[in-house]
Parts: sequence; C-alpha cells; structure tokens
Amino acid sequence: MRFTKMQGAGNDYIYLNGFEKLPADLSALSRRMSDRHFGIGADGIVVIMPSDHCDFRMRMFNADGTEAEMCGNASRCIGKYVYDKGLTSKTLLTLETLAGIKHLILDVKNGTVNRVSVDMGNPILSAPKIPVNTSLSEIISYPLEIENNTFNITCVSMGNPHTVIFLNEMERYDLHHIGALIEHHELFPKRTNVEFVEILSPDHLKMRVWERGTGETLACGTGACASLVAAVLNGKANRKAVLHLLGGNLDIEWNEKNDRVYMTGEAVTVFEGEWNNNI
Amino acid sequence: MRFTKMQGAGNDYIYLNGFEKLPADLSALSRRMSDRHFGIGADGIVVIMPSDHCDFRMRMFNADGTEAEMCGNASRCIGKYVYDKGLTSKTLLTLETLAGIKHLILDVKNGTVNRVSVDMGNPILSAPKIPVNTSLSEIISYPLEIENNTFNITCVSMGNPHTVIFLNEMERYDLHHIGALIEHHELFPKRTNVEFVEILSPDHLKMRVWERGTGETLACGTGACASLVAAVLNGKANRKAVLHLLGGNLDIEWNEKNDRVYMTGEAVTVFEGEWNNNI
Repeated sequence: MRFTKMQGAGNDYIYLNGFEKLPADLSALSRRMSDRHFGIGADGIVVIMPSDHCDFRMRMFNADGTEAEMCGNASRCIGKYVYDKGLTSKTLLTLETLAGIKHLILDVKNGTVNRVSVDMGNPILSAPKIPVNTSLSEIISYPLEIENNTFNITCVSMGNPHTVIFLNEMERYDLHHIGALIEHHELFPKRTNVEFVEILSPDHLKMRVWERGTGETLACGTGACASLVAAVLNGKANRKAVLHLLGGNLDIEWNEKNDRVYMTGEAVTVFEGEWNNNI
Repeated sequence: MRFTKMQGAGNDYIYLNGFEKLPADLSALSRRMSDRHFGIGADGIVVIMPSDHCDFRMRMFNADGTEAEMCGNASRCIGKYVYDKGLTSKTLLTLETLAGIKHLILDVKNGTVNRVSVDMGNPILSAPKIPVNTSLSEIISYPLEIENNTFNITCVSMGNPHTVIFLNEMERYDLHHIGALIEHHELFPKRTNVEFVEILSPDHLKMRVWERGTGETLACGTGACASLVAAVLNGKANRKAVLHLLGGNLDIEWNEKNDRVYMTGEAVTVFEGEWNNNI
C-alpha cells in the first residue's frame, strides 16, 4: 500500500488514498501504522475519499485508533496531497469532515502546492457555548487565581474550548503545571485547551499550547486561531498576524467582514513510502 | 534517496545503501531523518558500506547526530538488508564496526531472511574491567542496599557495563527510580546499564532494561546477553533461553565451548521509502 507522510506545523500524519482499496478496519490500520517504533510512526492516519457533495471527504484516526473529527493542520496537508497527486486541478476546495464542510485555498508554486489556507469558521465567545461555568456572558481578560498568581484569561471556542493567557517571558513559568491546573479548573465543565501567548509585536505572537487530554504539543491550529482572536479582543494584536509555534509558523487572520478565521501555513510532504505489512 | 525502515526487538533505524552516493554529512542527515515529527522518525540511521577486509561495513548515527559504535539488534537488521536486497548470497557474514568485527548468521525462509544470529563476543566478568569500584574480583550476587532494600546484583560487561538484578513480580517495584539510583551509584565509575530480570523458567526470562544515559528502552541486545550470562552464573537459567523484552523476544545462548554469546531474533522490514528533502 502506498502512503505519504506529511506534516503541517509539526502535526504529522500518514495520508492514504481512499479512492483505492484500503483495509476495512481503518482503526486497526491507524494503530499499527502510527506506532513510532514498530510502524511508520505518526499522530495518526488521514484517508482522502470521494464525497457526495464536496470535492473530497476526509476521515482521520488517531494513533490509538479512535476516529477524530478534524484537524486544521491535517486539512491543509490534504490540499497539497490532492493537488500534487493530480486528483484535482482546482485551487479552491470543499472538504467534508465530521466537523462539517471545510474550505481550502491552495497557493501553487512551480506546479506544486506550497501553502494552504483553511477557513476555520467563526469564533464563539459566548461563555455558556464554550462552555465556561460563569454568570458572565463572555470571558475576556478575566482574573483567575492559580496558586497565588493571578492570570487574566480570555476564553474562545473554535469548535473546541480554548483559554488564552498573555505572558511576558513565558520561559519564567512552569507552563505544564499551570496548563494542567487550568485544564481541570472548575470553570470548565468540558475542560479546556490552554494557550500561552507572548506578544512580540502586533503582527508577531509567540504561542505554546497545552492540549486537553494530551499535554503540550508542537502545534494546535484551533489554538492558534483562538489566540489571535483573544489578542485582538484584548487590543494586543492586529487582525492578521504570524503565530510562532514550537512546530512552525502559522498566519492567522480574523476577517472583519465575515467574522471568519483563516489559517495559512506550509504543508510539507516529508516522504513517500510503501507499506506491505499485513493487518 | 531510497531508504528502508527496519526494526529488531523494537530498536528502529533507517537503513541506507552506502554503495550509492549519500550526502557527505551523515551526522546532519541522521538528525533530520530521525526526527519523529519532521523527518522519517527513528532511533538513528545505519549506513551499509563496502569494507576492505569484511563482507560489509556499518556506520551508525544516533538521532542526535553522534556516531555510535554498534548495536546488536541493528547489526541483525543489516543481515536481512544485504541478503534481501541481493547485495550478497552468503548466509555467514563478517561486518566491520567501530566495536570490531561482528559475525552474522542468516536464517533464510522462502528466499528472504527471517531471523539473524549475531556473535556478541565473550562476556567480561572481571570487576576492574567492567568497571566496578570494588576489591572483589567479580560481582556475582553481591548485596547492594538501595533505600532500605537489598538487591543482589551481578555485573557483566558485553563491551559495555551491565548490572543484573533478579526480581519476583517486577511490577511491584519502581524500576525507573531504582534504575536511576543504580546507574549513578558510586560502585560504577562509568555508570552502568541496569537489567531487571524475572525468571519465568530456566528457558524463559522476562527482562526490562534501564539504559545508561537514556532511561528505560524497549530492548537492549547487550543487556539481554548480560542477563542470560548472569542468570547462568546464579544457577537460575540454562545456557540457552528466550529473553522476553518489551520490544520482542530474543534467543540468547552462552556457548559452553567457546564462551561466546549468540543473540538470535527477528529482523523486520517495516517499510520502504523515498526521501527527497534537501539536506
């Protein structure tokens, strides 16, 4: 079976062509392929398939075999995959996912896709919808006390809950400790992802992310979007800025006209391979 | 550049054909290729090259770019690589490594190599040669007190130092804590690897390994050899036994006639790939 290993901002998945015959049990396939010592090694697998009402459909499976709804950085890699492999010649694509229809914009250079933008939808600021346990309608620069430190938090949902904290010199803090305490704080009935953001300038933000249920990761697309939205709401950034993550840079724009957030960044084909193991 | 990802007992490396042109800076290549998110992902790279006085020569680079002397499980994979790819039709091979010449015995099934044995050399029991800071000539079932527990340790060098401890129900112990304390104990001027061994029967030993400078790993070929030697010295095992490691099983034999230790196990081709990134 042919496969393509790709990464976007350090989120690395194995991409499979679902127009060809694949094993029926994609969950088991993901567990075997994603193992970083006995398999190919990845955060999971992504299958690109035909769709009834979109250009393509994606299905994603995590390394543990569970099906995932969608990942912004993975959807950008799909844009590169389908164009570079000649499955489409369009540069505006619709993608069917478990989290709804996503729109991709491809930036083609010398016949291959270099960068991809994905429309990440509208940010949700309503506290009960995020959800946050509060009588306030929104949580913007709200003082939260954590072990004798007060952090001003801003909460944004991009389909999943994010809590954004602005820090100067974030290296001075134990982000894993603070991240875990906030993730499980009673304010958040469904827990929360936590973004730590340092404003380098109104156009450049440094971000580290603590992912709900996982811990610190190299990148989180929805977290980068939530961080830019929070920075704009707090008057700290322009509506378009570069987010510097451990896994790479992402350009985020919160469009003033349609209130939608666009994420743009590199999509990289790391290598092509052939997997002959039985499953 | 073509590459082959292989694993032996969970030690996974990227194998490259050094008979063809490769980048000059193999250290940098290993760092890039070994990265598990932005590269292919591996414990390192192994280059198979021509040798002046052996059948083949190997060079190994760790994921951090440092050159390694040799790895028993990697040398077994080389046996499969050179035979399956038609670089040789011999089933007894000599391999030039930075740790001396190694002898490989290939077990061929249906035209491809299934299992490979490697001659791991003579065990060293002399305390000053291991080295151990002691006036005793050998350390066999020597009581070592660690935080109010007494562990009977046996020390063996297979070119690198090992301290073997026999435990019943090893799950009851915090092996990482004990491993780190023994690794850095004043008895060991060059520190030591630590093997925890549970005797299931004289022919079946369960082993977990704490590697010097690394922590617990899935497998360690020299550690499995040292464990079998220590078990024989303590009257707990036969001279030939199966070692059950987290990464898989290894057959170890301490040959009575020539005092050499032979390690046999599966060598697995996980996938083949093509890497086009510039370096």
